[in-house]
Amino acid sequence: MRIGFLQLRPRFGAVKENVRKATATLERISDATIVLPELFNSGYLFRNEEELASIAETVPGGFTVSEMQKLAKRNRLNLVFGMAQKHRGKFYNSAVYVSSKGTVEVYQKVHLFDREKLFFTKGSSFKVVSAGDAKLGLLICFDWVFPEVSRALALDGAHILCHPSNLILPYAQDAMKTRCIENRVFAITANRIGSERRGATSLAFTGKSQIVNPMGEVLASASDRSESLRVVEIDVGEANNKNFTPNNNLFDDRVPPLYAALVRKRR
Amino acid sequence: MRIGFLQLRPRFGAVKENVRKATATLERISDATIVLPELFNSGYLFRNEEELASIAETVPGGFTVSEMQKLAKRNRLNLVFGMAQKHRGKFYNSAVYVSSKGTVEVYQKVHLFDREKLFFTKGSSFKVVSAGDAKLGLLICFDWVFPEVSRALALDGAHILCHPSNLILPYAQDAMKTRCIENRVFAITANRIGSERRGATSLAFTGKSQIVNPMGEVLASASDRSESLRVVEIDVGEANNKNFTPNNNLFDDRVPPLYAALVRKRR
Repeated sequence: MRIGFLQLRPRFGAVKENVRKATATLERISDATIVLPELFNSGYLFRNEEELASIAETVPGGFTVSEMQKLAKRNRLNLVFGMAQKHRGKFYNSAVYVSSKGTVEVYQKVHLFDREKLFFTKGSSFKVVSAGDAKLGLLICFDWVFPEVSRALALDGAHILCHPSNLILPYAQDAMKTRCIENRVFAITANRIGSERRGATSLAFTGKSQIVNPMGEVLASASDRSESLRVVEIDVGEANNKNFTPNNNLFDDRVPPLYAALVRKRR
Repeated sequence: MRIGFLQLRPRFGAVKENVRKATATLERISDATIVLPELFNSGYLFRNEEELASIAETVPGGFTVSEMQKLAKRNRLNLVFGMAQKHRGKFYNSAVYVSSKGTVEVYQKVHLFDREKLFFTKGSSFKVVSAGDAKLGLLICFDWVFPEVSRALALDGAHILCHPSNLILPYAQDAMKTRCIENRVFAITANRIGSERRGATSLAFTGKSQIVNPMGEVLASASDRSESLRVVEIDVGEANNKNFTPNNNLFDDRVPPLYAALVRKRR
């Protein structure tokens, strides 16, 4: 199957412009599974909840998802993209999956980063979705630092970790190689570039989107300064093979009773 | 506190020679916590269980631990080293901790690599030990690939992951940086160098022992071809600080109920 990322430089608050730029670029390809950045349609640095409320959309039904559904069906694309979701009076930092049939599923970010906690509500479950025969595990940006997220998605059958991001630190790309090796899955990290300044806060996003295979090898990567669409062909079945040596299967070798500390409530 | 590694090239089966070379080198230092490789006293490539039986020792009581205890007390060293352990008719690939007071604790490798499964019995618990105010989490070589091991040790209070290794693949060093970042702990990977050939099997060990801090920075590292003793000074209290941003504590931000898949029995 063909998988890829679209690395973007969104303009803060310019939802229609950002969506149209993305769909115009993706219009050139078909028959692929593509990951876009976190909050790709809005930009990242919301000043407060009021500003977030004015930009967040319902899923499905809002402008962004509707446009992505049209594109997905037209070009037979499976799309994973990040956006602010309005749902029952709350706001979520969500990854939306739109299949080539136009169906919609949502993952609401569980591990919120820094000031996102001030106005986003955290999600309460992980999400694996189907893209044909392949299963996609959804995680967003800072979720990378918790090994439990990728592990739970892989144990639930994910072949490909789809990782919309707005990274500002240099760690995630190497960590995602480790996530691929330890779970023997593919990973697509779609990061953004550019910078945002709101009030006293200034952030520079670090690009370097990448596609990694189950051996931790980088199949494609972007720079830290250009918008970029990359698509590669993979044999997704490689992610079904959890053998590390003739005598080691990374899933069968796990000893879940010894991992009890990981699910214990603390304090 | 002072922590370090001793990277070695053991000669297969020459236990006294290997132990004496290690203790002679460590004789030069004092007041430090030092990690040695997996199976440092014997070499790695046992032909069969009979050969293993002829080399494995009881812990404590055997030659190797007795020599290490004398050194530890004499030079006020805390030592973590790998060796084949004989215990109630079974054989374990163990990491032994000898404190500067001469006390002894043992971790028996849980995740056995490849042909180790043919004659070693796997351990049934993880182990965190005290070295003064610092807590050391013990893991051995291939344990690195299971994120649950480092996580369980860190949740149990480990400040420093002590990682005796006989690595033949290139992945662990980068993965251990991720282990440090995701758990905000130090890690000492003590690998061996040299090669062994027994029958049709030939292995080359990859060295590059390293010490990593909770930010994933390498404080010291060795080459892939020289025996090497490295010691660095650290503030072990850095590992008590699990804050990643002003609003993110990597332990408090965990959501254990969502990680239930990690402890579920499979099939």
